[in-house]
Amino acid sequence: MSYFDAASAAPLHPVARQALLASLDDGWADPARLYREGRKARMLLDAAREAAAEAIGCRADEVVFTTSGTRAVHRGIAGALAGRRRVGSHLIVSSVEHSSVLHSADLLEAEGGTVTQVPVNRVGAVDPTGYANALRPDTALAVLQSANHEVGTVQPVGEVAEVCRAGGVPLLVDAAQSLGWGPVEGAWSLLAASAHKWGGPSGVGLLAVRKGVRFAAQGPADERESGRAPGFENIPAIVAAVASLRAVRAEAAQEAVRLRELTQRIRARVPELVPDVEVVGDPERRLPGIVTFSCLYVDGEALLHGLDRAGFSVSSGSSCTSSTLTPSHVLKAMGVLSEGNVRVSLPMGAAEEDVERFLAVLPGAVAGVRESLDAPAPETAAGAGEIVVDSLGKRCPIPVIELAKVFAQVPVGGTVRVLSDDEAARLDIPAWCEMRGQEYVGEEPARRGTAYVVRRVS
Amino acid sequence: MSYFDAASAAPLHPVARQALLASLDDGWADPARLYREGRKARMLLDAAREAAAEAIGCRADEVVFTTSGTRAVHRGIAGALAGRRRVGSHLIVSSVEHSSVLHSADLLEAEGGTVTQVPVNRVGAVDPTGYANALRPDTALAVLQSANHEVGTVQPVGEVAEVCRAGGVPLLVDAAQSLGWGPVEGAWSLLAASAHKWGGPSGVGLLAVRKGVRFAAQGPADERESGRAPGFENIPAIVAAVASLRAVRAEAAQEAVRLRELTQRIRARVPELVPDVEVVGDPERRLPGIVTFSCLYVDGEALLHGLDRAGFSVSSGSSCTSSTLTPSHVLKAMGVLSEGNVRVSLPMGAAEEDVERFLAVLPGAVAGVRESLDAPAPETAAGAGEIVVDSLGKRCPIPVIELAKVFAQVPVGGTVRVLSDDEAARLDIPAWCEMRGQEYVGEEPARRGTAYVVRRVS
Repeated sequence: MSYFDAASAAPLHPVARQALLASLDDGWADPARLYREGRKARMLLDAAREAAAEAIGCRADEVVFTTSGTRAVHRGIAGALAGRRRVGSHLIVSSVEHSSVLHSADLLEAEGGTVTQVPVNRVGAVDPTGYANALRPDTALAVLQSANHEVGTVQPVGEVAEVCRAGGVPLLVDAAQSLGWGPVEGAWSLLAASAHKWGGPSGVGLLAVRKGVRFAAQGPADERESGRAPGFENIPAIVAAVASLRAVRAEAAQEAVRLRELTQRIRARVPELVPDVEVVGDPERRLPGIVTFSCLYVDGEALLHGLDRAGFSVSSGSSCTSSTLTPSHVLKAMGVLSEGNVRVSLPMGAAEEDVERFLAVLPGAVAGVRESLDAPAPETAAGAGEIVVDSLGKRCPIPVIELAKVFAQVPVGGTVRVLSDDEAARLDIPAWCEMRGQEYVGEEPARRGTAYVVRRVS
Repeated sequence: MSYFDAASAAPLHPVARQALLASLDDGWADPARLYREGRKARMLLDAAREAAAEAIGCRADEVVFTTSGTRAVHRGIAGALAGRRRVGSHLIVSSVEHSSVLHSADLLEAEGGTVTQVPVNRVGAVDPTGYANALRPDTALAVLQSANHEVGTVQPVGEVAEVCRAGGVPLLVDAAQSLGWGPVEGAWSLLAASAHKWGGPSGVGLLAVRKGVRFAAQGPADERESGRAPGFENIPAIVAAVASLRAVRAEAAQEAVRLRELTQRIRARVPELVPDVEVVGDPERRLPGIVTFSCLYVDGEALLHGLDRAGFSVSSGSSCTSSTLTPSHVLKAMGVLSEGNVRVSLPMGAAEEDVERFLAVLPGAVAGVRESLDAPAPETAAGAGEIVVDSLGKRCPIPVIELAKVFAQVPVGGTVRVLSDDEAARLDIPAWCEMRGQEYVGEEPARRGTAYVVRRVS
């Protein structure tokens, strides 16, 4: 098997494994206790905190260990919002944040606060002026990821931090995808991260809150981790997390070059090997290991299964996967094709020959899914007047396949109305138009579902 | 070293260690993913949930894994309160619950709810009628521990569950100290537990919510663990936790008999070996491995250090430890002596010879502390009128030592006023009176601190 889903969870780094084993014997006791076992546990915890702070680029007393990246985000946002309650309850986030951020924003709205989502461009990046324009007198907090988890696009965190600092608003950076590659630059106020993204064990997140940032931990009081992360500390996992962070950092510069070359190869060659593919995300400002593309007329879940059978573990932001019925909010915010979406995220140490094998296997896997769905051939011809395609009750990628099939009969200047009640169509029909150089006229409410109107221009 | 603080954290069980190592390779991936590594992780997680449910005595879909016992309690209480918000926001707890329960209760009060603390008797047990009397039409939830963490007293959970069921109120049982010994009997509605108390790894708690119990998870939404415990699952630790629970259960019946005999030995022999000691907690209805006693005229922290130097790791609920300046709320609620408090909690497998060595070392350790504090000899004689002892600015156990020193000069019928601003005096002066058979008249506000009045009756 080739595991190409490091952005979900990286395999345990050998250093993490060693450190975990070594600290199981010395790190199980309560670090708040005065006796020998407690003092040993405390020493391990203190040393881990020092090393984590050094890797983050902050003071040790600014770092607490949480039990996951999600928890670091949840507690960081809740604490920062509460700390600035007197200022107001307006939160700024980008439209492509991790669900842990967006769910925190939903909760704020449910409790009467307000949220501004800063949009992204077609490669998934925010514009710092978007944050500047969103700032209000009652803005309590802004949140931005260091890099996107689905498409790898690196965000202009340093510039956004400057904008926020000028506005007197703290910025929380979700560094889950990037901390293994290096510290987050700029004047951020809070930072969240997740150990299992860099090869540390599950069960460890980091939350850094710079001195001077107003912060009021929420939930029941607890004396552990400066009151910011309740519950007994998992010290062996914390030690393993920090040891592996240091290890991956030591390899990061060299490995970044190598993985960047491999993902560049995928970016360049997939569109050559597979017809009707859109590679998404910023081609330059991106994480070394992530590359994402979408395949027209392809059911994402079927493609994942096909690749799994061929020995490749990848992820998908398509609506056509069993875990969700709506397309990835990231692809949606970028306005790119979501159907047949594949995210390849290479773990450190990924082998070149596995990437080559992936490129060899992919065309057949895509063609197999398209064949099973009776998808149109890559090119087609002309017909006459407005054609109505009834795709009601059919799921992604069927509406786009049916659109493409009838398109050959449409004369230049003629239109097709696709009736669909599948949420993915709203994203994928305009994306198909952009890929095909056809005009997307717009959508209209229909008796059932929505009518998506496309005009043939060439 | 002999580690006698299993009630804080038990050393990692060998089965937990094996299971952790074995599942590091198969349990690191995201169980929500469709590919092979994800499916393996999901299978491990599902099997662990089945086994945990069997050990608890509930259905697998009623159990979620949290990241600590504290988090299980926090989320269980918050979710159960929110689920019954329409009924009201009154919470019933016992006065000797774990701090995670009491801090949840504090938060409810801060948010406008009300809390009734059911008192305990001198051995630390609640009376089911205390819960019956506390029930109100707006009671949303009742909480009771299965057994006390500081003195080992087993609570009448089955009877309290009946009382609650009759009143239509769900009961959350904090089973942190007892789940390794066996399932919790009775018609409880929610149950919380912590793996590192039975020899599982840190980082795993259990929360069971019976079907039909109204529950509304609080905090930002998250799709993991039925929405009840946010963040990426720590599957290797979960597997290790459940494997060790099964292992300790298999040994529990036999080990309970052995440890009960050892703690009974401590209960019986400490008062013979050390003068002026009060053994606390229920002598019969108690956990097998816990025994707690308090030593008059002893500084708890100094005694812990002395025992640590002699090779014993024990814990203390005294005010005189560095981690806290107020005496344990448990000892306070029981109305027993808190100074010089020692909790011995034997881990499974504790050796008889280590217990014997502890009994050999303890008298010298206590005598050493008393000598350094210039404590009075075990017996004393008489004097005249009211004597005022100014202990302002002095910490536990000094006020009681000074009281005892002047007591020899007081005639029968005469009184002593002890002026003290140490919170522990409020507990320890009445406790001293009870131990000595003298009359505690009461307390009065003084210009500084409080005057505690004691009358000599014999």
